[in-house]
Amino acid sequence: MSIDNTALLTDQYELTMVSAALRHPVAHRPCVFEVFARRLPDGRRYGVVAGTGRVLDELTGFRFGDDELAVVRRFLDDDTVDWLREYRFSGDIDGYREGELYFPGSPILTVRASFAEGVLLETLILSILNHDSAIASAAARMVSAAGSRPIIEMGSRRTHERAAVAGARAAYIAGVAATSNLEAARTYGVPSAGTAAHAFTLGFTGPDGPDEKAAFAAQIEALGVGTTLLVDTYDITQGVRNAIEVAGPGLGAVRIDSGDLGVLARKVREQLDDLGATGTKIVVSGDLDEYAIASLRAEPVDTYGVGTSLVTGSGAPTAGMIYKLVEVDGIPVAKRASHKESKGGAKAAARSARPTGTIVEEVVYRATDQVPAADGLTLRPLQIPLVRGGDAVDSLPTLAEGRAHLADALVTLPWEGLGLSHGDPAVPTRYVLG
Amino acid sequence: MSIDNTALLTDQYELTMVSAALRHPVAHRPCVFEVFARRLPDGRRYGVVAGTGRVLDELTGFRFGDDELAVVRRFLDDDTVDWLREYRFSGDIDGYREGELYFPGSPILTVRASFAEGVLLETLILSILNHDSAIASAAARMVSAAGSRPIIEMGSRRTHERAAVAGARAAYIAGVAATSNLEAARTYGVPSAGTAAHAFTLGFTGPDGPDEKAAFAAQIEALGVGTTLLVDTYDITQGVRNAIEVAGPGLGAVRIDSGDLGVLARKVREQLDDLGATGTKIVVSGDLDEYAIASLRAEPVDTYGVGTSLVTGSGAPTAGMIYKLVEVDGIPVAKRASHKESKGGAKAAARSARPTGTIVEEVVYRATDQVPAADGLTLRPLQIPLVRGGDAVDSLPTLAEGRAHLADALVTLPWEGLGLSHGDPAVPTRYVLG
Repeated sequence: MSIDNTALLTDQYELTMVSAALRHPVAHRPCVFEVFARRLPDGRRYGVVAGTGRVLDELTGFRFGDDELAVVRRFLDDDTVDWLREYRFSGDIDGYREGELYFPGSPILTVRASFAEGVLLETLILSILNHDSAIASAAARMVSAAGSRPIIEMGSRRTHERAAVAGARAAYIAGVAATSNLEAARTYGVPSAGTAAHAFTLGFTGPDGPDEKAAFAAQIEALGVGTTLLVDTYDITQGVRNAIEVAGPGLGAVRIDSGDLGVLARKVREQLDDLGATGTKIVVSGDLDEYAIASLRAEPVDTYGVGTSLVTGSGAPTAGMIYKLVEVDGIPVAKRASHKESKGGAKAAARSARPTGTIVEEVVYRATDQVPAADGLTLRPLQIPLVRGGDAVDSLPTLAEGRAHLADALVTLPWEGLGLSHGDPAVPTRYVLG
Repeated sequence: MSIDNTALLTDQYELTMVSAALRHPVAHRPCVFEVFARRLPDGRRYGVVAGTGRVLDELTGFRFGDDELAVVRRFLDDDTVDWLREYRFSGDIDGYREGELYFPGSPILTVRASFAEGVLLETLILSILNHDSAIASAAARMVSAAGSRPIIEMGSRRTHERAAVAGARAAYIAGVAATSNLEAARTYGVPSAGTAAHAFTLGFTGPDGPDEKAAFAAQIEALGVGTTLLVDTYDITQGVRNAIEVAGPGLGAVRIDSGDLGVLARKVREQLDDLGATGTKIVVSGDLDEYAIASLRAEPVDTYGVGTSLVTGSGAPTAGMIYKLVEVDGIPVAKRASHKESKGGAKAAARSARPTGTIVEEVVYRATDQVPAADGLTLRPLQIPLVRGGDAVDSLPTLAEGRAHLADALVTLPWEGLGLSHGDPAVPTRYVLG
């Protein structure tokens, strides 16, 4: 996927606000904007940051060329149009790395720039972080529930065609083993995988009726006996029999995509073993979410295929992050109206942990302060530099590094934090804003 | 947004299935694939088709160039790669127009092509229709709840940055008046709108504290008194007083983005009227969904700004449509395994209505049959030609026509079908497959 122009992936009011600000010194005052979530989605214990790398990619496409200016000229004055023509983000960005856990109030991204430069990025930054983090947060729960069994992400058809690519990327950070999405394989190098389709088996229907064995034989001819045969188009028991008859006991895997997956997995495992196909794996799919995956823990399942619930955030399709102006010319600022208060002033965060590694608190403190001490606990600062003077810093963490970081971070959660049941955040957020 | 190459917005298995099929006559057998939803999202009374126009746009980008072939070559044989290099959809597509209501089993899209040509499009078609129809279906409920009051869609920041553009388009079909999203304005001509940001008001904070009046004055200077001032950054009553003091009673509108919107709207209306600003409108926003909109019916609200719930489908972020092979060489085919049966054979549909216009049934019949008679009822066929021989037909309905079509169609629902309460589909689907 090419990085297109991203300047119009924003809300009209970001531009009218710039227009109004440009007539005053306000436009050029040094400001700090912060991205954070007031709360986690209902009952969730932790969130997973994803999308930061995409924010940096799309920032480079945030330029107003003639085509973009023609659109904004409909409602903007000439001075603003001229300013936008020269727009290039020149500020600094720090933030949580991809694959980092976050909690309510965590300063996930901090943008330092003039008012006008910073306010323009609100919508684009939030779109990316809210989507990608929602997917990663849901996917991490599924990966935890699956334990050592791999998950294949196969939800592209259940979400917007480009969101699917970003979703596959986010799911990979969260620990999913592979994706069905080929654009994610091309753009981000996510390992791709695939099994077989009901349409393929149905396609071998002739005047005399279905011919499942012909379909299986054709698939093995093209893809080898290591392939995965879909055995539930007609009758599963007959399907398994046909599969092993055609492929022999060396068949790679069978997939079951419907019915009571636990019962079927047991029956199919028994049947495969009886047929001597003791090494043939079982892939299950069909409306799986983290709870269904957990319920299959005791069943002889080898791989999970997960679609809808993964790409839609399993009940929480957006992460609820917001982008707030917190400091102007060094002065802390905050909205005061009901229910939506926020805490002014630029902030940093560190995560405290016991000597065992188990985390204790998310500590949010003033960016100008030292990391607060915590008796007997280690404190790990959470923000890293991402952009300096408008350019991405060298040696940003790779996707694989984010994935490894999350795998390590999940181990540091208090044990109840990994549970699927609803509850409070796994650790509290403590504000040290003195 | 440019129409990029879309060939890799698919699942790996679509290509491996083609690879296996190409070794056999199966690949070239004439097939019929149908898109339909087995059921509506939980409790919904109707669905709204959206995305069909985008499907046709993206079909033209579904070509395998050298870059795409380099990716698929990793897992495909040379013959398949050569076939893909020449791939160009050459079949026919019929379907429901955008803005058409749909119900369980409605044949929303019918693709007639060889097996290999048709199977390749499954993922792309479903991604677009599942996303866009989910948004349109949710938005239509909000538009109904809002009655004659306009809705501004402002959810871009709560969803993937490109999904936001498609979402704005779908919401416009559903009757939303305008979007905040500028890319939707550029690409699809959706009217754009905007109000004001808290950051703008906060940006005027000086060493002596906030200066809401300076912010309001700057906004009016740039955008005129017809603008919308955001009055809830600090204290709403003072904010309204400041707004009228600065703008005079001719102020266009004030926006309230937090708190108990019903109570606040009443208080603000009273205050505005007392200040002589009887023509100043009230825009409310902040976690609105169709239920919250309905609950504000009796309050003096002029415009709704809706974000999160609209772009995430208000609890149903995907429409659950599937793409099934239903006919091969004229032979009906269908999966038989549990819970996921479907009805074989190419189908068409017509909607029956009483002389008053109120609709009665969705009648699904064999595509080769005549429209079934219905005593005393009119029957309107629902599919229109979309693609012939690989090319979009001339004079496809425009976005505005889809929008008008839906407005008319909603009036034909039985009255309980427009209710927000959970229930069965507004009309039943009757299969006449004899």
